[in-house]
Amino acid sequence: MKPHFALALVSSVALATAAIAAPPATQAAREAALDASVSAADQQAWLKSMSSAPNHVGSPHNKANAEFILAQFKAWGWDAAIEQFDVLYPTPIATAVELVTPRRATLGGQEPPIEGDATSSAAGMLPPYVAFQGDGDVTADVVYVNYGLPADYLALARRGVDVKGKIALARYGGGWRGLKPKLAQEHGAVGCIIYSDPADDGYKQGDTYPRGGARPANAVQRGSVADMPTYPGDPLTPGYGAVPGAKRLARADAPTILKIPVLPMSYADATQILSSLGGPKAPATWIGALPLTYHLGGDGKTSVRLMVKSDWSLKPAYNVIARLKGAKYPDQWVVRGNHHDAWVFGAMDPLSGNVAMLSEAKALGALAKTGWRPARTIVYASWDAEEPMLLGSTEWVEHHTAELRAKAVIYINTDGNGRGFLSAEGSHSWQHLVSEVGRDVRDPQTGVPVLKRLQSGLLAEAYDGIGRTEPAQLAAAEKGGDLLMGPLGSGSDYSPFLQHLGIASLNIAYGGEDESGGVYHSIYDSYDHFTKFDDPRLAYGAALSKTVGRLVLRIADADTPPVRFGDFADTVARYLSEVRQLGDDRRAKDAKRRTLADDGAFKLATDPLAPVAPPAEEPATPYVELAVLENAVARLGASAKAYDAAYAAHGRTLAPATRVQLNTALRDIDQLLLDNRGLPGRPWYKNLVYAPGRFTGYGAKTLPGVREAIEERRFADADLYAERTAKALDAYAARLDAATAIIGR
Amino acid sequence: MKPHFALALVSSVALATAAIAAPPATQAAREAALDASVSAADQQAWLKSMSSAPNHVGSPHNKANAEFILAQFKAWGWDAAIEQFDVLYPTPIATAVELVTPRRATLGGQEPPIEGDATSSAAGMLPPYVAFQGDGDVTADVVYVNYGLPADYLALARRGVDVKGKIALARYGGGWRGLKPKLAQEHGAVGCIIYSDPADDGYKQGDTYPRGGARPANAVQRGSVADMPTYPGDPLTPGYGAVPGAKRLARADAPTILKIPVLPMSYADATQILSSLGGPKAPATWIGALPLTYHLGGDGKTSVRLMVKSDWSLKPAYNVIARLKGAKYPDQWVVRGNHHDAWVFGAMDPLSGNVAMLSEAKALGALAKTGWRPARTIVYASWDAEEPMLLGSTEWVEHHTAELRAKAVIYINTDGNGRGFLSAEGSHSWQHLVSEVGRDVRDPQTGVPVLKRLQSGLLAEAYDGIGRTEPAQLAAAEKGGDLLMGPLGSGSDYSPFLQHLGIASLNIAYGGEDESGGVYHSIYDSYDHFTKFDDPRLAYGAALSKTVGRLVLRIADADTPPVRFGDFADTVARYLSEVRQLGDDRRAKDAKRRTLADDGAFKLATDPLAPVAPPAEEPATPYVELAVLENAVARLGASAKAYDAAYAAHGRTLAPATRVQLNTALRDIDQLLLDNRGLPGRPWYKNLVYAPGRFTGYGAKTLPGVREAIEERRFADADLYAERTAKALDAYAARLDAATAIIGR
Repeated sequence: MKPHFALALVSSVALATAAIAAPPATQAAREAALDASVSAADQQAWLKSMSSAPNHVGSPHNKANAEFILAQFKAWGWDAAIEQFDVLYPTPIATAVELVTPRRATLGGQEPPIEGDATSSAAGMLPPYVAFQGDGDVTADVVYVNYGLPADYLALARRGVDVKGKIALARYGGGWRGLKPKLAQEHGAVGCIIYSDPADDGYKQGDTYPRGGARPANAVQRGSVADMPTYPGDPLTPGYGAVPGAKRLARADAPTILKIPVLPMSYADATQILSSLGGPKAPATWIGALPLTYHLGGDGKTSVRLMVKSDWSLKPAYNVIARLKGAKYPDQWVVRGNHHDAWVFGAMDPLSGNVAMLSEAKALGALAKTGWRPARTIVYASWDAEEPMLLGSTEWVEHHTAELRAKAVIYINTDGNGRGFLSAEGSHSWQHLVSEVGRDVRDPQTGVPVLKRLQSGLLAEAYDGIGRTEPAQLAAAEKGGDLLMGPLGSGSDYSPFLQHLGIASLNIAYGGEDESGGVYHSIYDSYDHFTKFDDPRLAYGAALSKTVGRLVLRIADADTPPVRFGDFADTVARYLSEVRQLGDDRRAKDAKRRTLADDGAFKLATDPLAPVAPPAEEPATPYVELAVLENAVARLGASAKAYDAAYAAHGRTLAPATRVQLNTALRDIDQLLLDNRGLPGRPWYKNLVYAPGRFTGYGAKTLPGVREAIEERRFADADLYAERTAKALDAYAARLDAATAIIGR
Repeated sequence: MKPHFALALVSSVALATAAIAAPPATQAAREAALDASVSAADQQAWLKSMSSAPNHVGSPHNKANAEFILAQFKAWGWDAAIEQFDVLYPTPIATAVELVTPRRATLGGQEPPIEGDATSSAAGMLPPYVAFQGDGDVTADVVYVNYGLPADYLALARRGVDVKGKIALARYGGGWRGLKPKLAQEHGAVGCIIYSDPADDGYKQGDTYPRGGARPANAVQRGSVADMPTYPGDPLTPGYGAVPGAKRLARADAPTILKIPVLPMSYADATQILSSLGGPKAPATWIGALPLTYHLGGDGKTSVRLMVKSDWSLKPAYNVIARLKGAKYPDQWVVRGNHHDAWVFGAMDPLSGNVAMLSEAKALGALAKTGWRPARTIVYASWDAEEPMLLGSTEWVEHHTAELRAKAVIYINTDGNGRGFLSAEGSHSWQHLVSEVGRDVRDPQTGVPVLKRLQSGLLAEAYDGIGRTEPAQLAAAEKGGDLLMGPLGSGSDYSPFLQHLGIASLNIAYGGEDESGGVYHSIYDSYDHFTKFDDPRLAYGAALSKTVGRLVLRIADADTPPVRFGDFADTVARYLSEVRQLGDDRRAKDAKRRTLADDGAFKLATDPLAPVAPPAEEPATPYVELAVLENAVARLGASAKAYDAAYAAHGRTLAPATRVQLNTALRDIDQLLLDNRGLPGRPWYKNLVYAPGRFTGYGAKTLPGVREAIEERRFADADLYAERTAKALDAYAARLDAATAIIGR
C-alpha cells in the first residue's frame, strides 16, 4: 500500500466523522457534506476487493459482493434487503472453435494471463462465450459479413454471396452485438462468430495491454446476444417477475433466445480465418486493421468448426434494494441504481460505477445520521444479472410495476465509469438540472467545472477537425449553455424504467480519456488495468458520486422537482425535423436508385472484380402523414413554454395544497408517453419517444414508431404511429396545461 | 505466344494494309481509318520489348527505345529526329539505411525477384532512391511526421515534438513526394525517409503482388524530390535549354536540389522502425494500416543511419521529335507527347501511354500514305527524362520558346494508362471537344461510349455513397452533359507548355480499375504485372489511341479549332467562388481559434497523454480586395458567351481571309493568362489560372496567385495578384471581343 493511499484513507475517516455534526439546513450545506464524505480511497479499497474474483451471475464472489453491499447499506443506516429472482442464465459447459480447412488450427479458449495483471491468473473464470446463443456443433464454410448489419447483407447480395448454410464471421462495432447473430440466423447461417477487429478495438486505438490499455491480440469481448430489441430481462418471463412459482416459457418458445451457436473471438484468432478467405474482395468500408486483404469468403475453401454446449439451469440474481424513507412525500420515489454482476472481474464494468454509488450511499447515510431526512423516499438498487440482458433490474421493475407507476419520480442509472468528460443521456425535461450540477462539480484533472470541461473538449475537437459533434451540440457548447443530452436506447438498467414504464430516466458517466474499451467484457477488465489506465486513484469515481449525489439530493429535497419542459419540447421538435428529413432523403435516394436501375449504371461495379447485381426492388418512400404529429409538437412547445413561464413566475411561492396538486400532476407525466400497445412487433417497448433501435440495439431511436417505420419501409405503420405518437404528446401537453392551471389558481 | 495474340497481329496487318487505299474525304472516314489502324496487339508487342530492360535516364535500353521509336516514326513516313539535351541526373553509387537503436537491422536495398514476374530477376536496375536529394551520411533519432506536410508540423509542434537534428519518417500520400523532404529540411531535419504505408498503398487496397496487383511488402516507390514547385526541368538551367555550351549553375547553387539525404522505403522495412518508436501516440488521422500502434518518436530511443552517395554527372536525354507538316496552316502546331524514360522497366509508367501514342503515329502515317495531309502541322514527341522532373520536355520547351509561342495551338499529353474510366484534365475551353470525343469512343469492357461509362461510374459511386465526386461533377453526370475536366497541376510533361508558356494543354488517360498504383515506380511495374492486372491485352491502350487520335485529327483539320470559351469562363467563375469561400472559411476559423485561445480550451488535449501547446499566433484573415477580379470574371463570362454565340451563328460560313484572321486571334489566346513576373517566389510559373500547388505539388491550384496567398496568409500578395489576375482575364476578354468582331465583319 502506497503512502498517499494510507493518508487518503485516514483523511476520509476524519471527514466522515466531521460530517456527523448537525443536520445541514441548506441544499448547499448538504452538498458540502456529500463532497466531504465522498472518498476516492474508499472506492479504491472497495473496488480492489469487489473485483478480486470472477463476478458472473451465479458465481460465489458475485453473491459475496451482494452481501457486502447489503452489509454496507445497513451499516450506513439504510433500510436494505436482498431481493432474489431466479432467472434463466446459460453458462458454457464446453466450447470449441477450430479452423478445419485449408489447414487445421485450434482457436478459442480462455485468454492467457498477462504479467502485471494479478487477476488474469486467477481461477474460476468462464471461457469466452455469449449469453443466449443457441448451442450446437457445426462445421461450415465462412463468410465475412463486416458488422453483420442489414446494409452489409444488401452489399453481400449484390456481390452474389450469401451465408445460407455457412458460418457468418462478423466484426464487433457498427451496431449492437446481438443483432449480428440474429441477422445471420435470419439469413440462414448455421453459426456466427463475432471478433474484435483492431480497427475498432485494438492496436489502432493505442498500445495494447499491458504496454498501454488497448485490447491485446488475445482478449475476447463476451456479451449477451439475447434479442433485446424484442424485450430484455429473463427470456422465460416477459412482462412479469421471475419469482418462485412464476409461469415460465419453455426455452424453445422464448423468442429472445437464438437458435444457432455463436462465439466471440480475439483478433489473433480471427486473423487465422480472415487470412485464409477467398472469394470477392471486401468493399472498402469493410476493411479492418489486420495486416491482410479482406475477402468475403463463401467460396468453399475456408471452413470452421463451431461448438457450444451450455448449462441452461436457472441461476439466482441478488438485487440489493435499500431505502431512506422520505419525510414529506414518502410515496414519491427517487430511484438510483448500478449493477454489480460482471462478465469476469468487472473492475470497470460495472464495479467502478458501483463503488461510486456506495460512496453516495455512505454520504447519504452519514447525512441521515445527523437527523436529516429527504423530502422524498430515496431508493438505491445494486442490480444483479445486468450483463446477460438487464435481468435483475427488469425482473424487479416487472414485479413492482404497479408500485413504480404510482410512486417513481425518476430513475438515475450509472454503470462503468472512467476518466474524462461528463456524459449524460436521458429524459430531456431534466437536462437543465443535469447542466446545473455540471456547473457545480469540478473536474479532478483540470479544476474547471465538469460542464465547462465538456464544452471545451467539444470546441477543441471541432477546432482540430476531428470531432463528430452534432451542430446543435457544438452551438450549445460555444454559447456555454446547457449540455444537450442524448436520448437513451439500451445497454444498461434504465431501459425497463424508461421504455417499459415511462419513468423519466438519466444515465450518467465520466469517460472518453480512459482505455477501458480495450478490455471491455474480457478477463483484463481488472483492478490493475483500471487503476493504471482508466481512473488512477478513482478521482473520477469521486466526481461521479458528487454528480449523482447532487442529482439525488436536489430531486429528493425539491419543493417541486426541478424540470424544464421547454427543453423536452425543443428536443422532440428536433427529432421530428430529423424524421421529416429522413423521409425527404429517402425519397431523393429512391429517385436516384430508379434512375440507376433504368440506365443500368449499377451494373458497373466500382470494384471491377466483383460481380454486382441490382439491389432488390423496394417500395418507394411516400410522403408520410406527419401533420398530426407536427401539430402535436407545436402544441407541446406552446404548453411547455407556458408551464415553464408560470413556474418561473410563481413556482417558489405556491400554497402547500397547490404544491401537492402540482407535484401529483407532474410526477408521472412522462408515463403519458407510453402507448400500451407498444411499438410495432415489440409490445414490451411502450415509450413512443425513446426506444433502443430494432437495428441499432443499444443506440436509441427517437419517435421510434414513425422513424423506424420509414427506415424499414413499413409505411402503414408510419401513418399509424404518427397518430399514436401525436396522441401521447397531446396528452402530455394537456397535462402541462393542467399543471399551468394549478399554478395559476 | 497465345493463339489470340498471333491472330490479332495478323488482322492488324490486314487492316493496316486495307487502310492504304485513298485519302478519306471526311472527318468520319479519317476516324474510321484511325480506328482500323490502331492495334492492341501492336501495342502489346511494343510494350513487351520496350519494358524488357531498365529504362532509367542514361541506361542503354532507354536509348535503344528512343532509337526504336525514331525508326518507327520514320518507317511510318514522319519527319523525325532525336533532339538531345545533356541534363543533370544523379544516380546512386551507394545507399544504406539501417536501424541502429534499439537494435541493429539492415534495411533498404534492391527489391527481391517475384516468381512469375520475369523482369524482376533481370540485371541493371538501380537500387531504390529518389532523385535530387542531397547526399550525406547521418545517424539520428527518428520522428514520424505522417505525410510530412505543413499541417503535420503544426500538429507536431502542439505536442512538443520537432525534427531538428533528427530524421523525418514520412509516409507517401497526402501531397506530392518532394514536399516531404523539403519541409523536413526546412524544419531542421538532417535526413528524410519516405515509405509506402499499406493504408494508402498495400494490402489495404487489395491482394498484394503476385496474388493480386497491390504493393507487396518489399516494393519501394522511387521518384523525384526536386523542388518542382519552384521550377521543373534541369536544376542547372532554369528557363533555357540544357544544350551543349549552355551556362549551368553550380550544383550547390541550384535551388531545386535538396541539401539532406533522402531515401524511399518499403513498408516491410518501415515496420521495423515504426514498431520501435516511443514518444507520444500519433494523432488518430496519422494512423496507417501497419499492425502496430503509431507513435511520434523523437524520444531518443530509435535511431537510424541513412546514407546516400550519388554520381552527379550530366546524362544525355533523347527526345524523339516527329512532324507531319500541315498543308494549310503549317505554322499552327498541334503538339502531342508522352515520355519513354522510366524509373525501372516502366511498363505502365510511361510505356503503356507511349505505345498508345505509337499506334496513333502509325495510323496518322498510314493516313498520310493515302495522300491525306493535315491542315495544321502535327508534332509528336517522345520525351526522355520526365521522371527526374520533366527534364526532356522542359528543356525542349525552354529551348524552343519563341517558336512554340508563335506556333503552338495546343499540347496534348498522355503518360501511363490503365483499365477503367476516361480521365481528362486541362484547359477548359477544350472541354466540349473532349466530351464529344468521349461520346464517340466505345469502352472496350462494356461497349458503351467512354463518356457514358464515366458518368455511370460517378453515379454508381454516389449511389453506393463511396464517391468523393464534387457536386458540380455529379450534377453534370446526372444530366448526361459534358464531363467537367479538372485543372492541370504538375506531374507530367504538359507543365512547361501550360504553366511556363501558356499553351492550352490537355492530359488524357484511362484508369481507375487497374492496379498499377501498387507497383508505381518500383521494379514490379512490369510487362507481367501490366498484362495481368492493369490492361490485359491492352484494350484500353487501343481506346486511348482512338481518343487522342481523334483529338489530334479534329484539331489539326478543323477550319477553326473547336473551342468553347463559355466553359472556360464558367470554370474560372467557379474557381473564384471557391477563393471567396476560402476567405470566408478562414475568417470563421480564425474567429474560433481566438475564442479557444481566450478560454484556454486548446489546452485540453483530445489525446490526454500528449501535452498540447497552443498553435503559433498567426495574423487573422482580412477581406481580400476581390472586386477587381469579380468584375474581370463577369466580363470574361459576357465576352465568352458573345463569342460562342457569334461562332455558332456564323462560324461555318466565314470568308477565307476572315477565317485566317480569326484563327490568328485565337491561336495564342491562352498565352494571355500569363504574367511574365510569374507567381510569388516562383517566377518560372507564369500562368495566373493554373499552377501546381506550392504545398500540394502535383495537385493543381487554380487562380494560384490569390488562392495560395490567402492560404499562406500573404495578404499583400493576395491583393496584388487579384489585380494581376484580373488584368490577364481582361486581356483574354478583350481578345475574345476582338475575335467576335472579326466574325461579325
